[in-house]
Order: sequence, then C-alpha cells, then structure tokens
Amino acid sequence: MTNTITIVAFSMGVLSLLVAVYLYRWVVRQDAGTERAQEVAAWIRDGAQSYLRRLYSALTLVAVALGVVIAIVFSFDIEHIGLETVAVNPTKGLMMAVAFLGGAICSAAAGYMGMTVAVAANVRSATAAREGIRPAFKVAFYAGAVMGLAMVGLAVIGMSLIYMLTQDPEIILGFSFGASALALLAKAGGGIYTKAADIAADLVGKIEIGIPEDDPRNPAVVADNVGDNVGDVAGMGADIFDSYVASTVATMLLGQSLFSGELQFRYILFPLLLCTLGIAASLIGIQFVRVGRNGKPGTALNLGTVVTCLIFGGFAAAAVFLFDYNPGVLWATLTGLGTGVLIGFTSDYFTSEGYKPVNETARVSSSGAAINIITGFSYGLISIVPSILGIVAATLLSYYLAEMAGISGIYGVSISAVGMLSVSGMIVSSDAYGPIVDNARGIAEMAGMEQEVIDTTDVLDAAGNTAKAITKGFAISAAALTVLALFAAYAEVVGARGMELVISLREPLVIAGVLLGAVTPPFFGALTMLSVTHNAFDMIEEVRRQFRENPGILAGTETPDYARCVGLAAQGALSSLVLPAFLAVVLPLLVGFLLGPEALGGFLGGSIFTGVIFALLMANAGGMWDNAKKFIETGQYGGPGSDAHKAAVVGDTVGDPFKDTAGPSLNTLITVMSLVSSLFAPVIAAVHLF
Amino acid sequence: MTNTITIVAFSMGVLSLLVAVYLYRWVVRQDAGTERAQEVAAWIRDGAQSYLRRLYSALTLVAVALGVVIAIVFSFDIEHIGLETVAVNPTKGLMMAVAFLGGAICSAAAGYMGMTVAVAANVRSATAAREGIRPAFKVAFYAGAVMGLAMVGLAVIGMSLIYMLTQDPEIILGFSFGASALALLAKAGGGIYTKAADIAADLVGKIEIGIPEDDPRNPAVVADNVGDNVGDVAGMGADIFDSYVASTVATMLLGQSLFSGELQFRYILFPLLLCTLGIAASLIGIQFVRVGRNGKPGTALNLGTVVTCLIFGGFAAAAVFLFDYNPGVLWATLTGLGTGVLIGFTSDYFTSEGYKPVNETARVSSSGAAINIITGFSYGLISIVPSILGIVAATLLSYYLAEMAGISGIYGVSISAVGMLSVSGMIVSSDAYGPIVDNARGIAEMAGMEQEVIDTTDVLDAAGNTAKAITKGFAISAAALTVLALFAAYAEVVGARGMELVISLREPLVIAGVLLGAVTPPFFGALTMLSVTHNAFDMIEEVRRQFRENPGILAGTETPDYARCVGLAAQGALSSLVLPAFLAVVLPLLVGFLLGPEALGGFLGGSIFTGVIFALLMANAGGMWDNAKKFIETGQYGGPGSDAHKAAVVGDTVGDPFKDTAGPSLNTLITVMSLVSSLFAPVIAAVHLF
Repeated sequence: MTNTITIVAFSMGVLSLLVAVYLYRWVVRQDAGTERAQEVAAWIRDGAQSYLRRLYSALTLVAVALGVVIAIVFSFDIEHIGLETVAVNPTKGLMMAVAFLGGAICSAAAGYMGMTVAVAANVRSATAAREGIRPAFKVAFYAGAVMGLAMVGLAVIGMSLIYMLTQDPEIILGFSFGASALALLAKAGGGIYTKAADIAADLVGKIEIGIPEDDPRNPAVVADNVGDNVGDVAGMGADIFDSYVASTVATMLLGQSLFSGELQFRYILFPLLLCTLGIAASLIGIQFVRVGRNGKPGTALNLGTVVTCLIFGGFAAAAVFLFDYNPGVLWATLTGLGTGVLIGFTSDYFTSEGYKPVNETARVSSSGAAINIITGFSYGLISIVPSILGIVAATLLSYYLAEMAGISGIYGVSISAVGMLSVSGMIVSSDAYGPIVDNARGIAEMAGMEQEVIDTTDVLDAAGNTAKAITKGFAISAAALTVLALFAAYAEVVGARGMELVISLREPLVIAGVLLGAVTPPFFGALTMLSVTHNAFDMIEEVRRQFRENPGILAGTETPDYARCVGLAAQGALSSLVLPAFLAVVLPLLVGFLLGPEALGGFLGGSIFTGVIFALLMANAGGMWDNAKKFIETGQYGGPGSDAHKAAVVGDTVGDPFKDTAGPSLNTLITVMSLVSSLFAPVIAAVHLF
Repeated sequence: MTNTITIVAFSMGVLSLLVAVYLYRWVVRQDAGTERAQEVAAWIRDGAQSYLRRLYSALTLVAVALGVVIAIVFSFDIEHIGLETVAVNPTKGLMMAVAFLGGAICSAAAGYMGMTVAVAANVRSATAAREGIRPAFKVAFYAGAVMGLAMVGLAVIGMSLIYMLTQDPEIILGFSFGASALALLAKAGGGIYTKAADIAADLVGKIEIGIPEDDPRNPAVVADNVGDNVGDVAGMGADIFDSYVASTVATMLLGQSLFSGELQFRYILFPLLLCTLGIAASLIGIQFVRVGRNGKPGTALNLGTVVTCLIFGGFAAAAVFLFDYNPGVLWATLTGLGTGVLIGFTSDYFTSEGYKPVNETARVSSSGAAINIITGFSYGLISIVPSILGIVAATLLSYYLAEMAGISGIYGVSISAVGMLSVSGMIVSSDAYGPIVDNARGIAEMAGMEQEVIDTTDVLDAAGNTAKAITKGFAISAAALTVLALFAAYAEVVGARGMELVISLREPLVIAGVLLGAVTPPFFGALTMLSVTHNAFDMIEEVRRQFRENPGILAGTETPDYARCVGLAAQGALSSLVLPAFLAVVLPLLVGFLLGPEALGGFLGGSIFTGVIFALLMANAGGMWDNAKKFIETGQYGGPGSDAHKAAVVGDTVGDPFKDTAGPSLNTLITVMSLVSSLFAPVIAAVHLF
C-alpha cells in the first residue's frame, strides 16, 4: 500500500502542475489590451523579473554554500561523534544536500511561476474589465490558481520523489529546510522591497508633489507595482509552501519515531495521503469559483474555500475508513481544517469594515493620527486572543481526540497542522488573486483606461483584500501548529539519539532559552522595518533628484527613469537580508551548541510564542488601519481630504511594514529556526557545551 | 540569631519611616510661595486627594470582599481536601486575611504619603527655584525620599512583624498579594487617569483652541497635573513596593522548602537581612545626593544611586562573612544588584538624546508621523534585547554561582532579585523626584512666575526624565527576576503538597497554558489603552462644553470648572479597572482549576515572557518618542512648529499610554498573577479538572 500512496501522490502532484500549466497558457492567450497598457505592464514585468533574477542569483551562492556545509556535516554518522571513531557516510550527506537544493529550487520555481503569470494576468484582467466583472475575475482567479496549483504540485512531487528514492523522512527535512530558507529570504526581501517603494512613491508623489497614486510621472511608481508582485505573490506563496512542506515532514518524522512495524510506513505516509486528497479537493473546488451575472467576487472566493474544505473532509473520511486508519487521525484532520477556516474568518472580523475594530479606528481618526494609532494598535493586540484560543483549542482537541482513539496525541497535533494546510492549493489561489487585481487597478489608472474600468477593478480589489485577510490568519495559525509539530519532531529526533529531552520551565537553561527565543521575532521584525525606512529614504532622494534634474518628467513630456528606482529597491532589499538571514540560521545553532539541546528546545518554544503573537498583531493591525482609511475614503467621517483621512493615512502607512514586511516574515522565521534545529538536532545532541 | 534579624529589620523599618516623617515635616516648612502659586497648588492637591479617596473607598469594598474569601478558603486545612474529612483551621484563615488587608493598607499608605508630600513639594520646589537650582532640587529630592523611605519602611515593618508573630512565610504571601493587588489597581487606574486627562487637555487646548500647555484657562489642566501625581508618584512607588515585597517573600518561601534544620531559619531570614542592609545603605546614600554650585541634578541623582549600591555591596559582603552564610548568596546578591544598574543605564541609551535611537527617531520625523512611529517602534523592539540578555545573564550567573558554592541555584536566582531590589529606597527616591519637578514646572507656568524660574525647573525636569528611564528599566528587570522567583516558589508550594510538578513544554496542557498566559499581558495592555482613549473622548466633550457655554473662560475672566474634569477623570479610571482587575485575579485561578497546576505553571511562564517583552517595548518606545520630540524642541530639524515637530508630537502622544498606562501595569499584572497562583497553589493542587 505504501508504494501505492507515494505513486498516487506523485501523480497527483504532476496532475496539479499540468493543470497549472494549462491555466497559464489560457491566461496568456487572453487579450493583452492596448499598446499603452502593454507598455505599462511591460515595465512592471521587467522590473519584477529583474528583481527575481537578482535575488535568485544572489541566493544561488548562499544555497550552494549551505548545501556544501550540509553535505559535509551529514557525511558523518553523527550518532558516533565524540571521542570514539567517527563513521563516515558520504551518500547520506550528498542526498541531504541534494534534497536541500531541491527544496530551494522548488520554492523558487513556485514563486517564479506565480509571479510570471501574475505580471501577465494583471494587464489582461484590466483589459477584460472593460467587458465586466465576470471575465476580469476569471482571468485574475485562474492566474492565482496557477500559483496555488504549481506550489502544491511541486511540493508533493518533491516529497514523494525523495521518499520513493530514500525511504527516509530525515532527507525530506533537508528538502523542507531548503524550501523554508528560500521562502524566508523571498518574503523578507519582497516585503522590504514592496514597502520601501510604496512609502517613497507616496511620500514624494502624493505628499510633496501632489500627484495621484499610480501616476506615471512618478519615477517610483513602477517599483511600487513591482513590489506588489514580489512581495505579495511570491511572498505569500512561499510562506504557505514552506508551512505545507514543514508540517508534512514533521508528521512523517513523528510517524517514524512513534510507530513501529507495519504501522510505521502507513503513518509516515498518511500526511502525504492528506496532501494528495487536498490537491484533488482543490482541483474540484476551483471549478466552483465563478461570479454570476450580478455575483460578488468575495462570495465566489469564499464559496470555493468552503466547498473545497467540505470535499476534502469527505475524501479524508473515506480514505481513513477505506485504508483502515485509526479514526483518531480523522478527528485530528477535521479539527485542524475547521480551526484554520474559523481563525481565517476571525481575522476578517478584525480587518473588515462593518465591524467594530475598523469602524472605531476610522471614527476616532477625526481626533488625529495618534488616537488612530493607539486605537488600531490596541485592537490589533485584542485580535491576537481569538486566534490563540483557536490554536489552543486545536492543540488540545487534536491531542485528546487522538489519545482517546488510541493513537499518539502528539501525532494528532501534527496531523491537525497537515489537515489545516492540505487545502492550501485553494487558499493560495484565492490569495494570489489579490495582488493581481490590485495591479490590474494600477495598470488601468496608469494606462488611462475609462473610469468604469477602474470602478470594476475596485470591486475586484476589495474582494482581494478580504481574501488576503483570511489567508493571513490561516497562514499564521497553520504556521503555529506546524511549528508545534516541528517542535515535537525536534524532541523526538533528540530522543532517538538516546537523550531524554526534558524541556522543563523549572530549569534555568530552558528559561534562558525561552527568553532568548522570545526576543528573536520582535528583533527580526524591527530589523526588517528599519530596512524599509532606510531604503525608502534612499529612494526618496532618487525620486527628488529625477524631478529636480529633469523638469520634463513632471510636465509629462519625458518618461522618468523607472529602472533606476527598481534597481535601487532591489539592491536595498537584498543587502538588508544579510543580518536577518544570519539570525535565523545561526542563532538556533549557537544556542544549541552553547547551551545544549534543552535550552534549544526552550528557544524554539519562546520563538513560537512571541512569533505567533507579533505576526497576528502586525497582520491584523495593518489590515485594520488599511481598511479604516478605505472606509473613510467611501465618504465617512469627512471623506477623502478631511483631517480624519489624513490621520488614517498615517495609520495606514504605519501598518504597511507591519502587515507586509515584518508580520509575514515571522511565520517563516520560526519555521526556519525549527527546521534548522530539527536538522542539526542529532549533531547538537552529540556535541554541546552545557 | 533569627530573632535578632527580625528585630533589627523591624527597627530599621521604623527608622526609615521616622526619617521619612522628619523629611516630610522639613518639606512642608519650606516657603509655599505666592498666593497665586498656592491657589494653583491647592487645585492640584485637592484633585489628587479626592481621586485617592475615591479610589481607596472603592478598593476598600473589593479588599474586604477578597479578604473574606481568603479567610474562608484558608480556614480549611487544604492538604486534606477531597473526599476525606476536611480539617478546619480558622486561625490560619483569619491570619491570612489580616495579612492580606495589611499588605493592601501598607501599599495604600505608602502611595498616600508619597502623594501628599508630592503635592506639597511641587509648589515649594517652584518657589525655591527663584533662589536657584540647589534649593529647588533639595526640596524635590527630599520629598521624593519621603516616598522611597516610607515605602521600604512600611514593607519591612509589615514583613518582619508577620514573621515575628507567625513564623510562617506563607502568611507573608498574603501580605504580598494584598500589596500587589492594590498596586495593580493604583497603577492601572492612575495610568488611565493621567493619560486620559493629558490627551484631552492637549487635544482641545493646544490643537483646537491654540492655548499653550498648562494654560490655566484650560478646564482639563488641573486634571492633567493631578494625573502626574496619581499616575507617576503613587503608581511607580506602588510598582516597586510590590516587587520588593514579592521577591522577599518568594525567597523566604524557597528558604523554607529548600533548607532544613538550623539552616532553614537562617535562609528564610536572609532576604529580610538584605532589605535591612539596603535601607541602611539608602539612608547613607541619600546624603550624597547634593547639587553643587554649578552641579547638574542628573549627576547628583546618579551619584546617589552608585554610592548606595557600593555601600550596600559592602554591607552584604560583611554580613555574609560575619554571620557565616554560604558565599554563594553574596555572589547572587551582587549579580542582581549589578544587573539591575546595568539594565537601568541601558534604558537610558534607548531613551536619551545624544544616542542613536532618539536622534534617528527625531531625524526621520521630517518625513512625517508614520515614519516617526515606525522608527520609534522598531527601536523599541530592539531595546528589548539588551535587557533580556541582562535578565538571562543574571538568571544563569546567580544560579550557577550559587550551585558552585554548594547552595541551591533556584534560591540564588531568587536572592538576585532581592539583591536588585534592596536599594529600592534610593531608587524610588530619585524616581519620585521626577513628577514633583514636572509639577513644579507646571505650577511655575500656571502661576505666571518669571521665565528664569521656568528655565530652572526645566533643567530639574530633564534630570527627572533620565531618572525615570533608569527606574523603569530597573523596575521591569527586577519584576522579571521576582516573577521567576515566584514561579519557582509556586512550583515548590505545589511540590510540598506531594505533587511533582513537571512543567514540560512537550505537554499539550502546558503549551496551552503558555499560549494563554502569553496572550494575557498584551490583552490587558490593550484594554487599558482603549480605556484611555475612551475616557479622553468623554473629557474632550466636557472641555468643549465648558468653552462653548461659558465664553468668559477663554477670555480669562472666569475660572473654568476644574473639579468637573477631575471628577470625570477619576470616575472613568475607576470604572475602567473592573475588567482588567478581574482578569488578573480570576484568569490564573480559572486556568489552574480547569487545566491543572502544570498548565497554570505554563500560564505563569507565558505571562512572564510576553509581560516583560511588552513592558520593555512600551516603556522604552514611549520614552524615546517623548525625548525625540523634546530634542526637536531644542531647535533641531526645524524646531518647534516645524513639520518634524508635528510628526514628533504624534509619536509622543502614541507613546504616552504606552509608557505611562499599559507598560507600567504589566509588571504588576504578572506579579499579581504569580502571587494569586502561589497563594492558591495548595488548593489547586488538591482540586482541578484535568
């Protein structure tokens, strides 16, 4: 049976990829619109591609260097490190390094595909918007689906292939680490890029010069639109890709160490089976995402998510009974799935107009920016509570339901993470839709399309924001459960080396580890936010210089030097990555080798707790400020140009690096730190100072 | 010997109190100035006293009710609860309730004394400022010393008296809980009061009407100045009072459970001995705080702190060798003391002009409020790192130095907290100086004194801000170590009931507890901040109403109705306390009784981690924004009235509830939650659902 599962999983991955390619070809066949629109789109496309090429060529060096280190470290048979003779096993080292590079390449490829289709779809969706909401929505959503399906397809192909070849989940850990390391750099880099460009474009364009958003005379406008693609599309896709793989591999590792005999293979492969079913459910669910004649795009996206979840739940139930799995794993799967959806909709409450948090934040804006910030920040803190309650409920329920069914509770918690993430194909599809329609709106404006078209893209955009809020809540809670699973896997890996791991909060080394871990996510977030303002200042200087030295730009007679701003944003983002990346990889190793595996356990625990809290705070507060501003722009509390609006713009600008730079990187940060710890756990268990 | 220590401690407490009374009488004998100045001072005094009376009469009810609950619960001999026969021991219940009320009364009395002298000293310091810095500084500092000495005196009298009468540290736990519960309400209430009044006074006065700060025509100006007293004087004093008592009692409890035989009493009483020596050192150190002819008040305050620490270190060394204590406790004491001072000075780096964080935050302000907020918030996040490293170093050093000297490491950690706090008499004296000179400045302005006098009070005020920053860093790190000690004490108390407490991060119930605990401080902080804006809005309406209905006020021909604003602020603050207070007391009990003592251990751990992180973030970011604004007001980056200044004012207003409402309450919140858990630990160990 086990062979069957890997083969079916591999085939499903290939199918998912084929559908993605088919949809991609469909998207690029659509009308690319007027010459002017194509010109504008080409600027964005070229900027995005040149950034990704620069990013990937820089990362190639890092990845190869890390690959060599991994190859060397894992060529030693670590259980026998010490003063005894050291056994050498170069095959394992080589396999691990190849898996690592494979993970990085798959993650990069998913991001690249998603972005390629996004920069083709934006102009086509804008062009289709002339015909109405329906065709424009279709182009944007199918383009989003390319990203979603490519991502899950590549992930499942990679994992099942490695398992077929090596039968060793630890090698898949290398794959997962490669994927996450790349995701971290892609997300942090993209987040810094997009917000530095955004802030610079706004500050000089809107405030100093007084030209509207997306005005083609602004030299930073292309960089701003490129940023939406490299930050949101490539970023969020990489985020879910990395949780998706990490939760699966954590569960496979737990399956290996918690079960034995014939059961072992069955439970190692169960998470892969869930992924397969999730892809099947997503392929069906995507068909349900259609906007009727007067339909609303938001409803269509939500319907798709709900249908996919229901189908997946049915599939999972059928599989558990058909293949005679313990019913505990079904309860755990459904717990995870249900919690993910619930937490997603909770995020919606805190970030959508029509509910108290956004409305209150908008209302108090008439008393100035400070009150807007205090109120939004406070509601952001409160928004953490329901999500944490959801994570607590999912942890306890999946644990005890599994235990009551007679199966390991820890395995149940891990399965709940997989259950939550198995519908990622659909979730990412709705999410990637957001930046595409956001870009479509920008292109419609820059290419001077009719007001009617811009209105249509506005409607599409609003639905994208809701989808984005739901995905963020989903992504953060999924990451939390994934990291709890990785945490358990880490303890099991250390335990397998004959060392009983007691991560007790009564031990001073563990407390030291927790405190150090707890401070890492806020520190990391601060570094990325300071990079945003630092890079924004460089770009502000450049934009001012262009306006000053070339008065033809503002007169509209000359084209600004977009490429220079694009290059500046790319270079700034890349050089800002060095310290954060170093922290993510080196800090856990430092704690582990110096303070020992139990302190490292505490470190991981601490980083999860504050990582999740700051990620939720920043994502939700950012979304809240954004939508409070938009709510005022609909004419409330004085409407655009009022004092309330000016205050809300300040809140929105503060929220930008919160929600699009620091916040989203934190999930991946804690995943990378957990993965590097699990990967090096055997070495750390053998060699440490305390 | 044990009897000697309690008698010496008691006598030292009485001496401290007598010196406080002597200084108080000296302060009130000073010249109270012109009739106008006395009139202004009387408004502030009456407002502050009426608030405290309302607060205390409301709290009397709460305290008596809680006292009755405590009397009943502790009348049962809890070890035998269950299905067996229940032994009844009403004497213990009564003693516990009396100790609880005693703690609340001592804490209230220290706050009341501090505030009474502050509202007498402010006008006298302003009047003395006509003669120069020296006499004005002397009045303000000696008034601050009244607060500092009264506080440590009352604490030591209370603890030594209870120990003399009962020989049972658990009863002192009741005293500590009473002190902390009152401190939490005093601080949260005072913090909400002061910032609601401050924001309302600024928004209507400075921004809508355009009259200067502290203008007597502003109906909210008295409430604003009252707020400085009830928030800063009574608040910060209560904060350190509660850590001071809690760290001592935690160490006494650990001494009881970790030692036996003759050693037991010696180590139960060692923390009380340290307190005694700390008072002696403070009494001497206070003599060194003098401003020379051209001296700087900041230098004088710092010199006093350093001298007190050195003297205390010498005393502690002498006592350890004379009374033949294990040298490990000396290393732990000195580790704590050194770390406290170092962390205090680190806070100074992050919140003083002349260093990068404040200068950068000021510099970027010319690009608008949003960039100011992002930059200040980011540096605030970074400021957490050195303090946490200090706490980690203090924990590990005091643990391992104690272990190496052959004494319990946990006891060492607990002693390091006592060592840090033993010089509180001096620390609180410098701290209470701050709001007094701040008020002196306000009175000088409102009473129309000469510009020269206002300049002198400005110099005094700047030194107060630095002292305040140092105290805040000190208070937060001391609270962190205290709560770690309480955490250990909690585990020991549960352990003493025959239940081995394993607070392992591998247990789902513990993880659930940690997550719930971690989310409590940010939630609590958010509630207090939302109360600030809510109450500020009510007062804004009242101020607008007075200006509208009585045009004579703005013309300066009629006195505004100050009392109405004062009453509104008091009522708003009191009614905002209900939910936060409920959370602090009931949430730990709920977690304990429902999820069990191990989950409660996790809950306490989680609340410490995020409590300390958010407290540091809020205190430091708030101080940074405040001083960035002040730096611009010295003429940098365009000076007062420039765009940079407007942006910095937004940052300062956001920072106000951060640093004066939410941040300072979090220390006390985690102390109260740890105390209520330790107190009810035996009951929870006997009765819980999971």
